[in-house]
Amino acid sequence: MDEITIDDIPALTLGAGVLATGGGGEPFVPRLMVEEALRRHGPVPLVQPGDLDPDGLLLPLAVVGAPTAFAERFFNGSEPRAALTALERHLGRKGVGVLPIEVGGGSTLLPIAAAAELGLPVVDADTMRRAFPRGELTHFHLAGISASPIVLVDTADNLVIVEATDNPTAERLARAATTAMGMIAVGALYPVTAAQAAAHAIHGSLSYCAEIGRHVRAIQEGAADGYTALLAATGGRIVFTGKIVDLNRRTEGGWARGTVTLDDLDGANRTLRVDFQNENLVAGEDGLPLVTTPDLISLLDVETGTPMTTETLGYGQRLTVLALPAHPRWHEPDGIELAGPRAFGYDLDYVPFGGHGE
Amino acid sequence: MDEITIDDIPALTLGAGVLATGGGGEPFVPRLMVEEALRRHGPVPLVQPGDLDPDGLLLPLAVVGAPTAFAERFFNGSEPRAALTALERHLGRKGVGVLPIEVGGGSTLLPIAAAAELGLPVVDADTMRRAFPRGELTHFHLAGISASPIVLVDTADNLVIVEATDNPTAERLARAATTAMGMIAVGALYPVTAAQAAAHAIHGSLSYCAEIGRHVRAIQEGAADGYTALLAATGGRIVFTGKIVDLNRRTEGGWARGTVTLDDLDGANRTLRVDFQNENLVAGEDGLPLVTTPDLISLLDVETGTPMTTETLGYGQRLTVLALPAHPRWHEPDGIELAGPRAFGYDLDYVPFGGHGE
Repeated sequence: MDEITIDDIPALTLGAGVLATGGGGEPFVPRLMVEEALRRHGPVPLVQPGDLDPDGLLLPLAVVGAPTAFAERFFNGSEPRAALTALERHLGRKGVGVLPIEVGGGSTLLPIAAAAELGLPVVDADTMRRAFPRGELTHFHLAGISASPIVLVDTADNLVIVEATDNPTAERLARAATTAMGMIAVGALYPVTAAQAAAHAIHGSLSYCAEIGRHVRAIQEGAADGYTALLAATGGRIVFTGKIVDLNRRTEGGWARGTVTLDDLDGANRTLRVDFQNENLVAGEDGLPLVTTPDLISLLDVETGTPMTTETLGYGQRLTVLALPAHPRWHEPDGIELAGPRAFGYDLDYVPFGGHGE
Repeated sequence: MDEITIDDIPALTLGAGVLATGGGGEPFVPRLMVEEALRRHGPVPLVQPGDLDPDGLLLPLAVVGAPTAFAERFFNGSEPRAALTALERHLGRKGVGVLPIEVGGGSTLLPIAAAAELGLPVVDADTMRRAFPRGELTHFHLAGISASPIVLVDTADNLVIVEATDNPTAERLARAATTAMGMIAVGALYPVTAAQAAAHAIHGSLSYCAEIGRHVRAIQEGAADGYTALLAATGGRIVFTGKIVDLNRRTEGGWARGTVTLDDLDGANRTLRVDFQNENLVAGEDGLPLVTTPDLISLLDVETGTPMTTETLGYGQRLTVLALPAHPRWHEPDGIELAGPRAFGYDLDYVPFGGHGE
């Protein structure tokens, strides 16, 4: 891909649903926003970080907050552009491209909409190659890059700028502001140069997202080898197929937290539990963790192949539990320390991808 | 006064203690900060709003947060200047003077320190002529002036800028950020021109504060007519003299809330209760309100004349309960609606100053 057209949006939305791993919120409104922006402004060039002026400023964008709130408060459409132009004003310079912070959920689509509106290319990269529930869980943070200044814009056009002395503090202050904003905002964080993105962003993330989406669409359309192709393209595996027998979901401290329990569909008497904090973080069977963060756990509707968010889960749903390996940088010791299960308060070690249950 | 010297600080501190009406926190650290600034940079010109370029930007400053926290987190000294220079950067223009938002507690002293450091005059005015626990309780808000942009700087050099579409939202977002900052910050809010301050600020507030302080110092020094002079200068009255028999204090939602109950010292079997939210807001006897916000209720140690903050109250203390009338603008219907007892959740009407119990 060297540009993103309106025809790419269905696949990107599906891929973003898989990479959202339960978080990211319903993509309905972000999808409308990006389709409207592309309809009005035409295709957006998709560029590599190395294609841009190395000293040029990239405008990074993500959805911030608890996905639970996304169903209650709709974006009005102006937030992404407002956040990025406020960042430009604050820094006193213009951006040369828009960079997605994460390629999960609405955070994948809004940067494309903003790029269309600002007449800028979007960069085929991100900082997570998935969604994560906290803004410091990025390869930029691993590289020592400041998340500040962070610009937050809410659905009522209120603006907050955070300049913290370290990234965990930035996350804490931004989360407090987002909670007061009704638990949802568009955030511009980690302003970097194209050279910094070339060195530290995860290259090809939007292409990867679109590729996953095309495979999911093939599954939805009944392609016989749909899952085989998806697993081959991603190195993923299917760890469980089951029916929801228990669901526990609450909004706490700006996050949607909970667990979903599945009984298997084959009468084998197996039970899988998935723990989530916005995103699915741990999948375990009989107390034995099978897949843990930073690897990806996505729940797909068995019949339709649709990636499910934690908000759309319901008792009795039949789901395919798909696991994808995280980008290899996440598997290094500092990656595991930052984004492994202990970082989320779980008293268990990271399980190497495929380490159990194969 | 046409300048503020280091010799004016004791009286200003005492006056600020009275006008803090229990809030504003212990003035110890702000006093050290302003004395250090005046020692280093010399006296600060004290000017009237009309003395300045009408289009010139005033840099307004206040302490924000729960006074309870002031005893635990000390300002490092750089916050006032950091907040005002961040405001200048954000607005893209330089200030011509520093304006206190309130003349209660540390909020009186820090603007003087900042003015000394920035080489600017301080304006002899404020927007409350007292302390209030919420940033929208100002004459500027009554005049329809936006509190945004609000710049907050905490004791660890973190910075938050809030640009809200209305002042109650600005207050809510700023309070959420301040709470995440450890419940204390220095805030620059309501940036105005000198012409706006000339029209809508309360003129002479720093002089008034110093005058009150000089009378309190006379009381402390045992002047026979000390209270008489204080009451004559302010139109105030002493509503009670008693001993603390009950004290109830908690930190809630970024505020110090509670009640203090006094039994009278004359064996007359009278009991007075004062309700506070950072500041003392209602004083009542046997369920009958005697003095209510926006009028001022200050508790002074009977022996030493020292104005007490809610944090320094303790069982058995003997206190003089001093009531001062609010600035007349507060007594107009919109002033009562904004800052009267119902605005703080009390189910009672404003009691005209001196209306009961005389």
